[in-house]
Amino acid sequence: MLLSTEAVTAARMIGEGRLAGLIVCEDDGTPHTVLGGSQVVRFMIPEYVQEDPTLARVYGEDAAAKLVDRLSTRTVRDLLPRRQDRTALPVVDRDATTVEIAAVMARMHSPLVAVLDDEGRVSGAVTASRLLERIFTRDGDASS
Amino acid sequence: MLLSTEAVTAARMIGEGRLAGLIVCEDDGTPHTVLGGSQVVRFMIPEYVQEDPTLARVYGEDAAAKLVDRLSTRTVRDLLPRRQDRTALPVVDRDATTVEIAAVMARMHSPLVAVLDDEGRVSGAVTASRLLERIFTRDGDASS
Repeated sequence: MLLSTEAVTAARMIGEGRLAGLIVCEDDGTPHTVLGGSQVVRFMIPEYVQEDPTLARVYGEDAAAKLVDRLSTRTVRDLLPRRQDRTALPVVDRDATTVEIAAVMARMHSPLVAVLDDEGRVSGAVTASRLLERIFTRDGDASS
Repeated sequence: MLLSTEAVTAARMIGEGRLAGLIVCEDDGTPHTVLGGSQVVRFMIPEYVQEDPTLARVYGEDAAAKLVDRLSTRTVRDLLPRRQDRTALPVVDRDATTVEIAAVMARMHSPLVAVLDDEGRVSGAVTASRLLERIFTRDGDASS
């Protein structure tokens, strides 16, 4: 997903794919940041509703569809916090070991680590749950 | 999952279920906190390996299975940060509206909101991706 992708498209992808988040890339395919599902949700809820649970309660289910309207005409760039610590991107090379991926994930407290190809473009991603699945599979079956 | 559940069991559940995280409960079923996948991974990697990516790189795939050993004899309680802001649990009642769940998720920056029954015990959970899926389904089909 690119910085210029429409915010609605990103939200729909997370929902339909049941994804933990998305990796946001520059137009040249290099990674920019990770966008979590809750960041998208945050953008859909006005701040005064976030601060007041009682107010949130009065909105019926019809209002939920209107949340999507708040994303229209916005891009992914608009969903991201203004100040990004660009040095702290969770990325690994394509030949990274399981321990290396786990170390990056642990250090950056990220639920997702991006995998880069030789040109520095994002070629895939590893989630915390996928990593744990992998570790336990190896643990139980050394031949895999 | 309870505070007294074995850490290995929690890690395996996240991996096998491909879960974003787990809701940790007190022994009486009331919610204690949310445990993310990356928190479990963090516990499996020694701090000196987290801090040194070059060091992480020298570990082969055989070492990955050994990461599980670091969880043995530990409980979920051990995986949690010592200081918990117990007032900031992302929870809603069973009759919460979509907007209400979204507001709690947005305010707490949580990828997961626990749903409580009438006795205050955890009866389920809603993820950010599930919430977005729900919002878009309603958006496209008002009769659903």
